Amino acid sequence: MTDRVREILSWYNSENPGVLTNLARILNHGRLGGTGRMVILPVDQGFEHGPARSFAPNPAGYDPRYHFQLAIEAGLNAHAAPLGSLQAGAVEFAGQIPLILKVNNHDLLLEERDPLPAHTASVADALRLGCVGIGFSIYPGTAARRLLYEQLRELAREAKAAGLLVVVWSYPRGRGLTKEGETALDVVAYAAQIAAQLGAHLIKVKLPSAHLELEEAVKVYEQYQIPRDALADRVRHVVQSAFDGRRIVIFSGGGKKDDQALLDQIRAIRDGGGFGSIIGRNVFQREKSEALRLLDQIIQIYAEG
Amino acid sequence: MTDRVREILSWYNSENPGVLTNLARILNHGRLGGTGRMVILPVDQGFEHGPARSFAPNPAGYDPRYHFQLAIEAGLNAHAAPLGSLQAGAVEFAGQIPLILKVNNHDLLLEERDPLPAHTASVADALRLGCVGIGFSIYPGTAARRLLYEQLRELAREAKAAGLLVVVWSYPRGRGLTKEGETALDVVAYAAQIAAQLGAHLIKVKLPSAHLELEEAVKVYEQYQIPRDALADRVRHVVQSAFDGRRIVIFSGGGKKDDQALLDQIRAIRDGGGFGSIIGRNVFQREKSEALRLLDQIIQIYAEG
Amino acid sequence: MTDRVREILSWYNSENPGVLTNLARILNHGRLGGTGRMVILPVDQGFEHGPARSFAPNPAGYDPRYHFQLAIEAGLNAHAAPLGSLQAGAVEFAGQIPLILKVNNHDLLLEERDPLPAHTASVADALRLGCVGIGFSIYPGTAARRLLYEQLRELAREAKAAGLLVVVWSYPRGRGLTKEGETALDVVAYAAQIAAQLGAHLIKVKLPSAHLELEEAVKVYEQYQIPRDALADRVRHVVQSAFDGRRIVIFSGGGKKDDQALLDQIRAIRDGGGFGSIIGRNVFQREKSEALRLLDQIIQIYAEG
Amino acid sequence: MTDRVREILSWYNSENPGVLTNLARILNHGRLGGTGRMVILPVDQGFEHGPARSFAPNPAGYDPRYHFQLAIEAGLNAHAAPLGSLQAGAVEFAGQIPLILKVNNHDLLLEERDPLPAHTASVADALRLGCVGIGFSIYPGTAARRLLYEQLRELAREAKAAGLLVVVWSYPRGRGLTKEGETALDVVAYAAQIAAQLGAHLIKVKLPSAHLELEEAVKVYEQYQIPRDALADRVRHVVQSAFDGRRIVIFSGGGKKDDQALLDQIRAIRDGGGFGSIIGRNVFQREKSEALRLLDQIIQIYAEG
Amino acid sequence: MTDRVREILSWYNSENPGVLTNLARILNHGRLGGTGRMVILPVDQGFEHGPARSFAPNPAGYDPRYHFQLAIEAGLNAHAAPLGSLQAGAVEFAGQIPLILKVNNHDLLLEERDPLPAHTASVADALRLGCVGIGFSIYPGTAARRLLYEQLRELAREAKAAGLLVVVWSYPRGRGLTKEGETALDVVAYAAQIAAQLGAHLIKVKLPSAHLELEEAVKVYEQYQIPRDALADRVRHVVQSAFDGRRIVIFSGGGKKDDQALLDQIRAIRDGGGFGSIIGRNVFQREKSEALRLLDQIIQIYAEG
Repeated sequence: MTDRVREILSWYNSENPGVLTNLARILNHGRLGGTGRMVILPVDQGFEHGPARSFAPNPAGYDPRYHFQLAIEAGLNAHAAPLGSLQAGAVEFAGQIPLILKVNNHDLLLEERDPLPAHTASVADALRLGCVGIGFSIYPGTAARRLLYEQLRELAREAKAAGLLVVVWSYPRGRGLTKEGETALDVVAYAAQIAAQLGAHLIKVKLPSAHLELEEAVKVYEQYQIPRDALADRVRHVVQSAFDGRRIVIFSGGGKKDDQALLDQIRAIRDGGGFGSIIGRNVFQREKSEALRLLDQIIQIYAEG
Repeated sequence: MTDRVREILSWYNSENPGVLTNLARILNHGRLGGTGRMVILPVDQGFEHGPARSFAPNPAGYDPRYHFQLAIEAGLNAHAAPLGSLQAGAVEFAGQIPLILKVNNHDLLLEERDPLPAHTASVADALRLGCVGIGFSIYPGTAARRLLYEQLRELAREAKAAGLLVVVWSYPRGRGLTKEGETALDVVAYAAQIAAQLGAHLIKVKLPSAHLELEEAVKVYEQYQIPRDALADRVRHVVQSAFDGRRIVIFSGGGKKDDQALLDQIRAIRDGGGFGSIIGRNVFQREKSEALRLLDQIIQIYAEG
Repeated sequence: MTDRVREILSWYNSENPGVLTNLARILNHGRLGGTGRMVILPVDQGFEHGPARSFAPNPAGYDPRYHFQLAIEAGLNAHAAPLGSLQAGAVEFAGQIPLILKVNNHDLLLEERDPLPAHTASVADALRLGCVGIGFSIYPGTAARRLLYEQLRELAREAKAAGLLVVVWSYPRGRGLTKEGETALDVVAYAAQIAAQLGAHLIKVKLPSAHLELEEAVKVYEQYQIPRDALADRVRHVVQSAFDGRRIVIFSGGGKKDDQALLDQIRAIRDGGGFGSIIGRNVFQREKSEALRLLDQIIQIYAEG
Repeated sequence: MTDRVREILSWYNSENPGVLTNLARILNHGRLGGTGRMVILPVDQGFEHGPARSFAPNPAGYDPRYHFQLAIEAGLNAHAAPLGSLQAGAVEFAGQIPLILKVNNHDLLLEERDPLPAHTASVADALRLGCVGIGFSIYPGTAARRLLYEQLRELAREAKAAGLLVVVWSYPRGRGLTKEGETALDVVAYAAQIAAQLGAHLIKVKLPSAHLELEEAVKVYEQYQIPRDALADRVRHVVQSAFDGRRIVIFSGGGKKDDQALLDQIRAIRDGGGFGSIIGRNVFQREKSEALRLLDQIIQIYAEG
Repeated sequence: MTDRVREILSWYNSENPGVLTNLARILNHGRLGGTGRMVILPVDQGFEHGPARSFAPNPAGYDPRYHFQLAIEAGLNAHAAPLGSLQAGAVEFAGQIPLILKVNNHDLLLEERDPLPAHTASVADALRLGCVGIGFSIYPGTAARRLLYEQLRELAREAKAAGLLVVVWSYPRGRGLTKEGETALDVVAYAAQIAAQLGAHLIKVKLPSAHLELEEAVKVYEQYQIPRDALADRVRHVVQSAFDGRRIVIFSGGGKKDDQALLDQIRAIRDGGGFGSIIGRNVFQREKSEALRLLDQIIQIYAEG
C-alpha cells in the first residue's frame, strides 16, 4: 500500500470499508497499481453506437471476451461494460481484472434532443458478477436530468451499502447546451462538480476545450483569469472543480484520433493533475498488438508523473 | 438553556423531543448560542451556480472542508450543503458544527422558465452523516411547485419521525411572477406563509423589496397601510406572516455586495425581528480572514439585538 | 476538539459520520468534555429493582425529571434510562444532556436462574426522543444469551445506520457461573471482549474482583502472571481485553457504598486506564446536594488523569 | 379547559397532539370532566370469566349495549371492552362516550400457572370503531411476561402514531408470586412502575394490601418506614411509584363487595391521590337503578377531592 | 492465472462469477498465490476462548490490528475474524488482505454438552466491510445441529447471491460423540462431506486421528482397508470425502504445539492433498518475528508441493 493510495483513500473517509477495499483494488491493480493513476477500458459502444460502428474496424471486438483480454494483457486498472458483455466474460476471467458494471445505457435508434439512458442492470447484478463498482451516466443539461440524478441517488445508496464503488460518467448534453458547449471548460467543470455532489467516487468527464458556454461563467473566468489555453490548465481546473482534487477525475479519450495527439492529451492530463484515462475506441478499434503498444506508451506517461 | 431558547422551543410543541433536541442544538451552538438568533453558512452554489462562479473569487472554497472550517472558526450556528460536500468533511469535523443536508438541488446547465430541483439525497443520508436536519427548496410560482410541495410532505414526515429539523428555502420563481416580483414584499411574505403551512421548522427567504406584485394584494397593503418603506418594516411583515413570529424565519444575503450595505441589511433584519441570516457568497467568496472579520461584525450586530 | 477526542474517534473509523458525531457529542459534553473520560448517570433501577428499592432513599428520584436535572447540574456526559423515563423529561430538557435509551429491561418479579431482559423500546424511539444512542444489556453465561446477542446484532445494525451509538451493558450471569464468578477478573474481561466483538461502541462492565472463575483461564493468568491484586491492574486488564484499549470501557459503581471506598475505586479506574464511570445508585440514592458534591469529587479525579 | 386538566396534559408533553386530544377527551367527559379524576366502566368479564359468572346477576348485561347505556347515563369518563362488545354498540352510541378497545384478552377454559392473554384486536380496529385508545393487559411475574412487554412496545408505537391513548392493565401474577403477593404493596407499586416505563398513558392496577412480597423490598420499606397501614397511604405510594404522580393511575374495584366497603375504598383512592376508578362487576352486576345510585355516590366522592 | 487455479475454479462452475472472483482473490493472494494452496489466519479465539487465554502469551494480539498486520507481512491468503475485530482494522488495511467475516460465534461462559453458536453478524456486514466471504461453524453431532444447518442454508443462499464465498468450520461435537470421536477419521471425513453437501466452498476441519468412532463405519474401514496409519493417508481420505477432492478442504492446527510436530503435520497435509492450513494459536500466540519465521517455513512446505 503506497502513501499515495493511502492518501487517496483518506479522501473517502465517510465511506464504509467495503467501498475503500474496492477503491484500493482498482488503485492497486495493473501496471499503474500504487501510483494513484489509472487507465480503464470502457466498452459500451456496442450499445451506445451500434456494433458495426464500434467493432468493424477491429472485428475481434465483437466478442466481449476480447476486451477482457485486452485490459488484462495491457495491465489496465479496470474494465467497464454493460450487463451482457460482462456476463460473457466474467467466468472466464474471474479475478483477473476489476470490473465495473455500466448500469444504464443509451442507444441511437431514436435520435432525441434530450437523450435519456435506460436503467439496464442492478446493484445485485454487479455483486453477482463480482464487480468492484457500478457505472452510471448522467446528462446534465437535458430535460430529464432530474430523473437521472434521482436514479443515481438510489443506486448509489444501494451500491455503497454493499461496498461497491460508484463511477459516474458526467456528460453534459441536451437542449440547454450548444454542441460546442458540451465540452466547454465551464460546462465540463460544472459536470464534474455535479457528479461529486451526487456522491460519485470516480468521475469520468470529457476533455474540455477552451470554449466557455454559460454567459455568467464567462465573466468569472475572465475576471479571475482562470488559465485555459493549455489543455493541462483546463484539466487542472476540472480536477479543482471536483472538491479541489479530492475526488478521482478521469478523462475519456473521445473518438479515434492520431496517436501523437492522443499521447499529448495523456501528458496534459498527467501534467494537469488528472487521475488517468478511460479510453475505449482509441484502443479497441485497432489491432491488438497496436493497441497494446499504444496502451504501453500511455501507461509509461502516467507512470512518470 | 436561556429563556429565549425555551420560548422558541415552546412554539414547536407539537413536535417530538428529537426535533426539539436538534432545534436546541442549532440555537445553542456558536457565538450566538442562546440568543435566539442564528447565522448559518450555506454552500450549495457549486451545484446551483457552478464551481468557478462560486469559488474562483476565493479558490480555497473548492475544497468542501474549507466551509466547515470557516463556519467553525466564525462560531456560526450551522453549515448547510449538498450530499457530496457534507460527505467530504463529515468525518473530519464530526461533532464540531451542526449540519443541514440540502436534499434537493438545481443546476443551471438548462435554463428553464419553471425550474425544478432534483431530489438528490435522503433522510437516511442525513442520519448517516450526523446532520441535525434536512434542507429543501420550494419554488412557489413555478409550474411544478405541487411536486415540490408533495415531495416536501413526504420528506418532512420522514425527517420529523427521525427527530430531524426541516429547513425550507422558499424562493418564489417561475412563470407566475415577474423578475421583480420574486422579491416583492407580498410575494416573500406569501412564500414564508406557504413554508410555515407545509410544516417547516426554519424558513429561509430572500430579503423583500418594497415592490408589490399581486394585484389583489396591492389593494390590501394600501388599504391597511402596511409599512414597507424601511427594510426593517418589511422584515417585520414577513416574520409576522410566518405565524406571527412563531416560526424561525431567516434571510439570505443574496449576491456579493458592499460590506456596509450588507451590515445595514443585518441591522434591518435584527430590528425587524428576523431570526438571523443564512449567508453564503458574501462570506465564502472573500479571503478567510476578511470573511471572519465580516462574520464577526454580523454576529455582533445580532448579539446586540 | 481535543487531540484525545480525535484519537478516540479514530478507533471507530469503520463507522459512519453520524455515529462519530454522536460519539463526539458524549465525549465533548459536560465537565469532562474533551478529556476522553466520561461519567454517565444510568437510572433503570425503577424497572430493574422496583421503585421503592430504588427511590425510597431519596424520594425526589421517583420523578424521572430529577435525574435529568441531576445529570445536567453535575455536568455529566450523558443520562441513560428506559423509554418511560426518557419520555417524561425529553421535552423539558431537550438539548441539555446527551440521552441513551435503554432498549431492553429486566424486572425481578420472577426470579430466574437464567434471566432474560425484554426488548422494550426501539431505534425509532431513540430517534424520536433525540437520543445519541441506545443501551442494551447482554447476560453472557445465561441459557438464552444467544437470543440477546442476536437481538443486539439487529438493533446495532439499525442503530448504526441511523448514526446512533450502541452502548452495551455486559453482565455475566446465569447457570454457567458462580455468584462470585460474575465479577471474576477473567469473566469480566471475557464479557468486555464479547461486547467488543458484537460491535459495541461503549462497553459497560462491573468492576472485577481478583477471583478467577474459569479453570482453563486460571492456568493462563498464573502462567503469564497477569497482575490482579490491585484494582487498577484489574481495570487495566479489562481495558486491554477490549481491543487493547481501543474500545471505550466504563465501569459501573454497583450498590451504594462508603464514599471513600467509591472514590478509591474511581482512582483505580483512572489509574488503570478505564474511560470512566456509569454510576447510578451511589448518586441518586442520596440527597441532591450530597450527590453533586460526590460527583464533583469523582469528576475531579477523572480530570486529573 | 381547567387548570388541572392542563396540568395533567403537560405531563405527557412528549406525545403528539392526537394523543393529547384523546387524553383531553377522557378527562373532560362526563360528570367528572375537568376535575382530573375519572371513573371508567370496563366490561371484559364475559371473555375473562365467562358469561354466566359475569352477567347472570343482572341479565341485562348480556347485551353489550347495556354497558354503553349505563356508562352514558351515569356520566362516566369512558367505557372499555373487547372487540365484539364495542362492535355491538359503537354505531348506536357513536360520539356519546369515549371508548377504549381492550386489544388482548384471556379466558379461563385452560387454567395455567402463567397465564398469557391473546392479542385479539388491532390498532386499526380501535380507529375504525372511533375509540380514544387501546387497553392492554400485562402480567408481570409470569413466565411469558417478555412477550407481553414486546407486544405492548409495538402496539404502543402504532397506537401513539395514530394519536391513540395506551391504557395498561398491570396485574402481577404467575409462578414468581404467591397469591397474596399479587396485591402486595411492593408488587403493585412495581407493576405501576413497569407500566409507566413501557410508555402507558393510563395505568390500571389493583388496590394494594399492606403485605410485602419481595425479600429485598421488605428491608427498604421498613428502613424508610414507608407508611402502609392505611389504604390511602398505600394508594399514595403506588401513585408516587408511577413517576411521582405524573402518570394517571387508576384502581380497579375487584370482586363485588359491600357498598360501604367500596365507598371507603373510593375515599382512600381519592385521599391518596389516585386518579379514579375502573369499576366493573360492582356496578354491572346489580340492577341498573342501583348501579346508577352507587356510581352517583362514587362520583360525588371524587368530585369533592 | 495459473492452470491450477483455473482448475480449482472449474470445480465451482455452478456458482456465479462473483463467487468465482472472490475464490480467485483468495487463491491468488499472498506468497502461495497461484499454487492452489492456502494459509489463512483465523482469530476468533477472543470470543471463543476468552481474551487472556488467547492473547496473554503474546499481548500484541489484544489489538485486532495486529492480526491484520501479521497476515499481511507473512503473505497469507486471508484473515478470518468476528465482526468487532474486522471493524477494528478494515479501514486501516482496506484492500491489503482478503477478509472472511465469521458470522457465528460461541463462548465458554456457559459449558453445554451440545454447544450452539450465536449468529452474530450478517451478509450485509460482510459486504459493508469488504470481505471476500463469510465463515460459519457447524457442530455435527450436537442436538441443535439442524438449526445450524438451516441457518447456513439461508446465509449461504444470501452470501452467494452477493458473490461471497461460504467457508464452513465443520467441527463434530456434542452428545452424539465421545471426546476422542470428535477427531476420529470417520467422523472428520463425515463432517467434510456434510459441509460439502451444505454447499460450502471452503471446508475447514480438524486433523483426523486414526481412531474410528461409528460402529457401522469401523466395519467398512476395515473391510476396504482404508489406510489410516499415516496422517497423510488420513488427510487424503478426508479430502476424498469432500467430493473426491473437488472441494477445498483446509485443516486447522489446533492448540499450540512443538514446531517440529507442526511442520510435520503441514507436510502430511501437503502430501495427502490437503489444500492448506487455517492456523491461529500456533502463530499469534508467539512473538511476531517467531511467528513470521514459522509461517515462512509453512509456506515453503506448501510451495514445494
